[in-house]
Amino acid sequence: MTEIKDKPLQQFLDELASKSATPGGGSAAAVMGAQAAALVSMVCNLTIGKPQYAEVETDMQALLEKSEALRARLTSMIKADIDAFDKLMAAYRLPKESDEENLARGETIQSILKEATEVPLMCAGACREAIELSRCAAEKGNLGVISDAGVAAMAAYGGLKSAALNVHINTNCLKDGVYAESKVAELEAILNGADTAVEEIYQMVKAKLSSQ
Amino acid sequence: MTEIKDKPLQQFLDELASKSATPGGGSAAAVMGAQAAALVSMVCNLTIGKPQYAEVETDMQALLEKSEALRARLTSMIKADIDAFDKLMAAYRLPKESDEENLARGETIQSILKEATEVPLMCAGACREAIELSRCAAEKGNLGVISDAGVAAMAAYGGLKSAALNVHINTNCLKDGVYAESKVAELEAILNGADTAVEEIYQMVKAKLSSQ
Repeated sequence: MTEIKDKPLQQFLDELASKSATPGGGSAAAVMGAQAAALVSMVCNLTIGKPQYAEVETDMQALLEKSEALRARLTSMIKADIDAFDKLMAAYRLPKESDEENLARGETIQSILKEATEVPLMCAGACREAIELSRCAAEKGNLGVISDAGVAAMAAYGGLKSAALNVHINTNCLKDGVYAESKVAELEAILNGADTAVEEIYQMVKAKLSSQ
Repeated sequence: MTEIKDKPLQQFLDELASKSATPGGGSAAAVMGAQAAALVSMVCNLTIGKPQYAEVETDMQALLEKSEALRARLTSMIKADIDAFDKLMAAYRLPKESDEENLARGETIQSILKEATEVPLMCAGACREAIELSRCAAEKGNLGVISDAGVAAMAAYGGLKSAALNVHINTNCLKDGVYAESKVAELEAILNGADTAVEEIYQMVKAKLSSQ
């Protein structure tokens, strides 16, 4: 089967819109994050090698390395979300005739739910990183493409807040309250300061645009 | 040449990251908007036909019609942004040897800049519509996929704020101040209330998730 990232963009959107449960919001969040990382890379690629930006050349090369690694991680999450969903659905389909089967099924579901929680949590963390990378691109990148750093920040923010909802879906179904609370706390730590960071980057980009 | 929407998602991301000026933030904004519309459609498709949602069946069918039309518009904007950029670059390449040529070139650039301003402005308007459609999906959609309505709102918001930056790039280059101001005013009208709307939808979705 063709992996989702290898399907045409139009087909991805068609499948997103369809009544099939996947791809869904989890994949959409990863695509937003991957777009953010890609746009940071674009700003780097259009800054590196330009004489008037020689001063930030080393910074931009380091940033590009980070943004490309992050893009690869986020792109792989488009599929990871689907895999986690499929695994969970398989667990829900386990037999539940006898008490024994019912107990085993319940335990499997809970164990897979814990695994599944990690997927959007990693996506949220990666999108938060993308926000910080877009800040660096907005601060030092080529003024001619500085708006792309702002778009990167907005795409990363969309991915972050979307992934956060998907963490909650899973933690709300977990019976292990201590575990669920620890994951929500991890998420809160990732979200902490993101609103302010994105607003700062956005206003920085807007100010740079109007000063040109 | 293969149209961008018909290229694999991975290739779209690669080209977004590359040092080619297009696709850039304008196309990324349209993709975010198209994802938002697609997710509204998904919520509709997973609500329509379910006995327990019979009461909202007609509303969901009407919403699906709107979200699919909006998705088609937003998908076409992925390419429209590239076309506008190419047209503008062609104008910048016009000869400027003589005073006459220089004057003609300047006039052509300004005229094409006016056209180019419409592209992100339409994208912003379409993303604003997607926010309202995601509100309807969040209010009435199948609770089992309600998080996708929240992701739709975040994707639409990312597309809206991104498109807004792209409107400013163009208006900042316009010499016709009255025209530029009128376009910024149009944009402000589109942006008006969007922050609050998205926050409301997001909190509504989060509350519905925790009540399940």
